[in-house]
Parts: sequence; C-alpha cells; structure tokens
Amino acid sequence: MSQKSDFGLIGLAVMGQNLVLNVESRGFQVSVFNRTTATTDEFIAKHPGKKLVGAKTLEEFVQSLATPRKIQIMVKSNAVKDSDRDAVDAVIEQLIPLLEKDDIVIDGGNSYYLTTERRDKYLAEKGLRFIGAGVSGGEEGARKGPSIMPGGPASTWEVMKPIFESISAKVDGEPCVIHIGTGGAGHYVKMIHNGIEYGDMQLICEAYNIFKNAGFTTDEIAQVFTDWNDGDMQSYLIQITGKALEQKDPETGKPIVELIVDKAGQKGTGQWTLLNAAENAVVISTINAAVEARILSSKKKARVAASKELTGPKVNITTDKAELVQKVHDALYASKVISYAQGLDLIKTMGEAKNWGLDLGRIASIWRGGCIIRARFLNKITDAYRENAELSNLMLAPFFKDLLSKTQQNWREVVALATLNGIPVPAFSASLGYYDSYRAERLPANLLQAQRDFFGAHTYERTDKPEGEFFHTEWPEVIG
Amino acid sequence: MSQKSDFGLIGLAVMGQNLVLNVESRGFQVSVFNRTTATTDEFIAKHPGKKLVGAKTLEEFVQSLATPRKIQIMVKSNAVKDSDRDAVDAVIEQLIPLLEKDDIVIDGGNSYYLTTERRDKYLAEKGLRFIGAGVSGGEEGARKGPSIMPGGPASTWEVMKPIFESISAKVDGEPCVIHIGTGGAGHYVKMIHNGIEYGDMQLICEAYNIFKNAGFTTDEIAQVFTDWNDGDMQSYLIQITGKALEQKDPETGKPIVELIVDKAGQKGTGQWTLLNAAENAVVISTINAAVEARILSSKKKARVAASKELTGPKVNITTDKAELVQKVHDALYASKVISYAQGLDLIKTMGEAKNWGLDLGRIASIWRGGCIIRARFLNKITDAYRENAELSNLMLAPFFKDLLSKTQQNWREVVALATLNGIPVPAFSASLGYYDSYRAERLPANLLQAQRDFFGAHTYERTDKPEGEFFHTEWPEVIG
Repeated sequence: MSQKSDFGLIGLAVMGQNLVLNVESRGFQVSVFNRTTATTDEFIAKHPGKKLVGAKTLEEFVQSLATPRKIQIMVKSNAVKDSDRDAVDAVIEQLIPLLEKDDIVIDGGNSYYLTTERRDKYLAEKGLRFIGAGVSGGEEGARKGPSIMPGGPASTWEVMKPIFESISAKVDGEPCVIHIGTGGAGHYVKMIHNGIEYGDMQLICEAYNIFKNAGFTTDEIAQVFTDWNDGDMQSYLIQITGKALEQKDPETGKPIVELIVDKAGQKGTGQWTLLNAAENAVVISTINAAVEARILSSKKKARVAASKELTGPKVNITTDKAELVQKVHDALYASKVISYAQGLDLIKTMGEAKNWGLDLGRIASIWRGGCIIRARFLNKITDAYRENAELSNLMLAPFFKDLLSKTQQNWREVVALATLNGIPVPAFSASLGYYDSYRAERLPANLLQAQRDFFGAHTYERTDKPEGEFFHTEWPEVIG
Repeated sequence: MSQKSDFGLIGLAVMGQNLVLNVESRGFQVSVFNRTTATTDEFIAKHPGKKLVGAKTLEEFVQSLATPRKIQIMVKSNAVKDSDRDAVDAVIEQLIPLLEKDDIVIDGGNSYYLTTERRDKYLAEKGLRFIGAGVSGGEEGARKGPSIMPGGPASTWEVMKPIFESISAKVDGEPCVIHIGTGGAGHYVKMIHNGIEYGDMQLICEAYNIFKNAGFTTDEIAQVFTDWNDGDMQSYLIQITGKALEQKDPETGKPIVELIVDKAGQKGTGQWTLLNAAENAVVISTINAAVEARILSSKKKARVAASKELTGPKVNITTDKAELVQKVHDALYASKVISYAQGLDLIKTMGEAKNWGLDLGRIASIWRGGCIIRARFLNKITDAYRENAELSNLMLAPFFKDLLSKTQQNWREVVALATLNGIPVPAFSASLGYYDSYRAERLPANLLQAQRDFFGAHTYERTDKPEGEFFHTEWPEVIG
C-alpha cells in the first residue's frame, strides 16, 4: 500500500485489535503500532488482504498517516488520581515531537475525566487536537460496533465524525455516537455509564437471590430472565443473565453459576463516581449500594466466619411462584428506573456546573446499542427528554411516573419480604428509599437542624418565616 | 504577670475562647493572640483576675511563652483538599521564624488528616514539633472538658499530656484523651467520629419520623426519647433530642421542632469519610445513607414539587403505641451498633494500613465523655476490645452479637412497616442490609462474576477448585 492511512491506532491488546478490524471493515486504511513489534507482526500476518499497515517505529507509524492525522491510543492506564502520570501520557509525550499542527490524538481508554481535561489543555498548547472518548461494549462491541462517547472541541468532533459514526453500533439506523460535549465530558459520561452498569448488575443479582431463597432451581430462574428479556425489561444484561444461568459446567453437569465463587471485584471507576457525586451533592444511592455490595462480597472469609456467629430468621417464602416473579419484576424495574434517574441527575448537575452543553436524551439514545447497559427502556428515556429537555428528574416524566406508581406496591412488598426473611436487598432498598425521600414534602431533617442548633448553634430556618432568615434557640443546659 | 505562660492559643473565636478559659481554670497561665487585637483586648477585659496574657503581636505572644512553647492554633480552615493552603498554614508560616527548636505547634481544628501529615513532616524538617488534635464537644465541651484526639510523635504527646489530660472531660476518673497514634491519626479518628455522629443523628430522625407518621404528638415523642435516655441507649444525642422536642416556640406556643425547616447541611467531613472508605474498600453504608439523607433534605423545592407528582401508599400504622416504641427502640439500637461497627472497621483498616498503632478500645473509651457521640454503650465497646483486641468486627463481640440477635426481629419489622407505609428509613435499611450481607455465607455475587466473565472475560474462581485459580467460560454468542 502506498497511499497514506485514514486512521492510526496504538496499542494492540484485545480491544485495540478489535477496534482496528472494525475501522478497517468500514473501508478505511488503518496503521497500527505496538510497543512490542512481534505483536504487530502477528496481528498483520493473521489478517492478510486487509488495508492494514504495521509500523515498526512510532516515526514510521506517524509518517504513514494522512494529515490531519487521527491517532487513537488504546493502552492500559493504571492511574487512579489525576496527578499520576500513566502509559497514555508516555505515549502522548513520544508522539508530540512527531506530529504536525491540527493532528488529532484520541484516548479511547477509561481515563479519569480530569486527566482528560489536563491532556486536552496540554495538547491544545502544542497546537494539537485531543478527543477523550469513552468506548463501551467489551471485545464484541469493539469489533462489531461499540457505543462511543467522545468529548472535546466540536470542530475536532466534526473531523472524526465520519469514522466514529461508521464504526459505532446502530439502532433504528442511528449511530450510537454523538459529540457528548467539550473537555472531559466524554470520559465523564462513560464513567457514569459504568456506575449505572454496576447498579444494573447488582439489581439483577438481588432478584436472583430472592428466587434462589424462595426455592427456585437455577433453570427456573434462567427461564424467568429469558422471559423478562422478551418484555419491557429487555436488555443485554437481562439477556446474558438468562444465558449464564442456563450454562452447564461440562465437568459436573451442574449450572456453572452454582460453582462460581461469590467474590466480586470493583475498580477505580466506582470510587471516582461516588466521589464525584459527593462533591456535587447528588445522591446516587443505588450505585453506592452496588459498590458496597461488591466490597462485602469480596470479604468472603469474614462472611463465612460471621455466618456461623450472627443469627437471622428462617427463610419462609410462601408466595405463589408466578406471583413472586411478577412482584420481583416490578421491584427490579422500578429500582432500575431510580438508578438511571440518579445517574442522569448527576450527569445533568455536572454538565451544568462544567458548561458542557449536554443533551441527556441524546446521551440515553447512544446507550441503546453497542454498550453493556443497552436496553429497550432507553427509548423511553430518550423520549422523556425529547418531550421535555428541562426535565428535573427522570422519575417525573409521565411514562416513568406512571410506571413507578404501578410498580410501587409490589416493590415495597418485595423489600419487606426480603427484609423479614434476612435476604439482603441493599440496592432495591436504596432505590425505594430514594423514591420515598424524594417525594416527601417533609423529611425529619427539621429535628436534625434542631440538634445541630442545640450543640453547635448552627441556626435554622423557620417554616413560618421567609427563606434565608436564620434563627437560633437558647436551648436548656444539659448536664453530663 | 512577669512569669512565662504555660500555654498559648491563637484564634479567639468561640471555641478558642472557651478552650483558653478551660486551660486557665486548671491552673495554667495562658497567652492569647488574635489577628484583630480588639478581640484580644475585649476578651482579656471580660475576664479580670485570670492568669491570661493578651499579646498584641505574634512576636510578643511567642516571647511570653515558656519553652518548649506549646501553641494551639484554633483558626477556621476552608481547605477541602490537601493541596489547598489555608489559614492554619498562614499562621504556621508566621510562627516558624519566631520559634525555637522543639517548640510545639498544635492544630486543634478539623483539618484533613493528610494535611496534618504534610504539616507534621514540614515542621519536623524545621526542628519543630507538631500535634494534629481533633477536639469534639462544641462550645460547652471546649469550656468544661472536651474529648481530645491528638496525633503525632509519642514523645511530643508526653510533653502535652499534663495539659491535655487536665482540660479534657473525665469519665469514671479517666481523662477523655489518649495519644491516638502517629502522623495524622488524631485528625483521622476525629473525622470518623464526625461520620458516626452523622449516622447517629440520622437514625434518631428516622425513629422520630416513624412515630410522627404513626400519629404520636411531638410531646409524646419527646417523652419516648426522655425515657430512652434513662435506659441502655442513654446518650447525649438522645438526651438533647428529648429536650429539643419538648421546647416550645415562645411566639406560637407550638413545639419549636414543628416550625423548623427540614433542610440540613453537610460539610466536607462527610465527603472525606466516604472517599476514604471507598479507597480502603470498607463499607460504611449507614454513614453513607446519613450523608445522602442530608443531601435529599436540602433539595426542598424539588421534594415539594415531586410530592405532588409521585404517589405513595396511604400511611396506615395500627401497631399498639407501646409496642411500636419497643420495636423502634430495637431498630435504632441495632442500627447504631452497625454504624459503629462500620466506623470502627474503617478506623481499624486504615490504622493497619498506616501503621498508626491504634487501640480501638481506648479510642471508644475517650468518646464516652465530652464529645457529641458520648453514650453509655461506648463502655460496652471499650469492654469488647479489652476482652479481644483482635476483634475483627464489633458485631461479633459477645455482647453485641447477643444484642443484634435479640433486636433483629423488631428491627426487620420496623423496616418492613416503614417500607410498606412509604416512610423513608434509608439508614435503618442500610444497617440491616449490612448485617444480612455480612452474615451471608453466600451472596449472589457468583452471578455477577458470571456476567463479568460473559461480557469482559474477567474470569472467576470456582467453589470446587483452590482459591487463586481463575477460570473462563466460552459463553454463547449473543445477538443484538
């Protein structure tokens, strides 16, 4: 090939390889570079006849690209704080002297949004352009069409748009990629996407656990999820849950799920999301509960020891099976709505604080395909924001208000049933607690304000006086 | 007065003034300095005949102190991150050129523990000594005897010990101050103390809210708390809750609590605690729920609007009043135990990671007096760690295991009752969810691990294979 490539990618791990094949399959010529040249050679050899250029040096790689160059970095970052310098920074530093004005560098990893903002500024100072893009969909999505969440200047997005739109997943003919917003908006929205994914997975696990405790076999539970995937809760995670529960272990013939150890890991993304929510004073209690559930799951030894010491009630669930399935369906669906309401509230709050110019409806629309949280009900979220772009909280959109109204009785009964039977449902509970707190005209924080004024003279406002006027009571002295 | 002072204090706001009067009342001569000299003059004039020295300049102040000087800084910090330089840093910079080797600077404010560690190191480089001390008890505690949590080198503590022990609260003759540990240990433990305070206050509010919804008058609820303060839940916060509920508004004659707006604030401490828990992978879900409840309380306008849109069940609580009081007592007590178990778990985890050499039993013992969370049941915590210093979780100590076993049925019934009646009890629920998760030999995270392996090839461990061996399943392909 003598012509210059349309696109370049650095980092040939699984995600990188799949993305390259995806881009190439859309008619683009792609140059690739990997630190270990053998990996590049192997990759090229494995895919003969494709419009691929394997570069042995970074110089050769850069020279093989048409200008303005479009270079996507897909290397693993282990940075936890923005102050950490990581592998992405190292690649950027090596690239800078080789690039020309207006060349575009894309970071397609899960970088922290503040890090993305630092890089955006840094490269702009060098006359280069930067896009921080969240890419969701795992290996399969990378190959066939992921959901892409790019952030950066609108003018840079316009240059990248043809490639991004052609490689992304499509739903109803619409590509699952939009220009999310300026600065770190793309990686930020990807971070919240991952938090929502945590919530969805935990809610599914709680539903599974109730069925298990009610005496359902794993096959019966698999059937419930398979059925649900044909209904209003259709989603990738519900679908793979059904398939995972069906899967048998070839060695023992048992459902493989029954043989898997109940210890889950959690990554920095969860921590970043929680911190960001706290900083913005936004409640994401469902995601929080999901992160906490993973942490407790990981303390397996402590749990096994405690299970012999701490008592609980005898499980006694006598509800008719079909009835229980409907109740848990409603609890799961309602809780999921709350989790999205919280996640979108955080995106909205942060978007306004950062002036990112986000469009929540369009963000929901690009999650409909390619990514892990793809689900039928995202259409309803898109509709809700199309009908009312100023919607203050998803719960208040007519469709969701109605859904929560219809499901709430079953939702409450499931939480009560689990609670009385000693089955932990932290995410179901946290979601319902959010719903009940948010719809409470009066919360008991009046007493809390009295306490704070009592011991710290913090003052309080009065219901019968104008807002912004503060009062203090001379409380009685307390001995001891 | 011609002799040199034993102690110096910078910053004559309310807490500072009260601390000075406390130190002076124990027989020490105290020098004071305030940026605004008029404040110093007023303070000195208001307290004639006391062993107080009012300094007009920092030079004069430093010269008035016996060596090694002991100077406590009590100025307000608005720093949120360690990278922020604040008023405490400014005072330290002004002091450094005036001090001599081995002089001691004490920061008695609510500084972030990492900031304390930075200052500790910085002053050590200058040949000076530093103590970061958490001081709890509000104005009254400062005057009569606070709970003090000093961190720093043991040798510096030895020098400060006579003053700290004499000004601190006493319980059963024991001073409510110990050397917490090295570095930032003192401010760290104070931070968790404040988190626990958040949890205690929220739990009390949830109990109050149930009674209110069950049709109790405010006077009846006041009586419940007053009665509880004579029993096993005796604590400062229960006591002032009873008093606050009794208090009438002089203007209207109504209980003042009914006139207070239900909007509560939250400070950086809550955020720091949540972040630290996430970083250490420790679950503090009760404190988390308390912070979230404050945030939702502050969104009053959104709640009032949502209360007209989002439906809930009609409240219908028919439980006999005395029976309900007993049930809520048990729910509150059990939840409180969980909150302390979580807070102490975090202190233990962090103490081990930092090598602070913490003694959880002694830490609990100095919270018995002076501070906001002082409570009778802290004796039981102290006992639990005296009996078993290696206790892995407070819930497992015989007294608490038994208590949780006895209270759990009522606890479950209260959470179920509130849930079915649409009364939010996020902290009661989070506490119970923790209990039920921690005592679960099997959690549903096996399914979560299957999902992660399905979409991301994350691998899993098997129950029938050795720990540390990881497996991957070739899951079926999924379309769409």
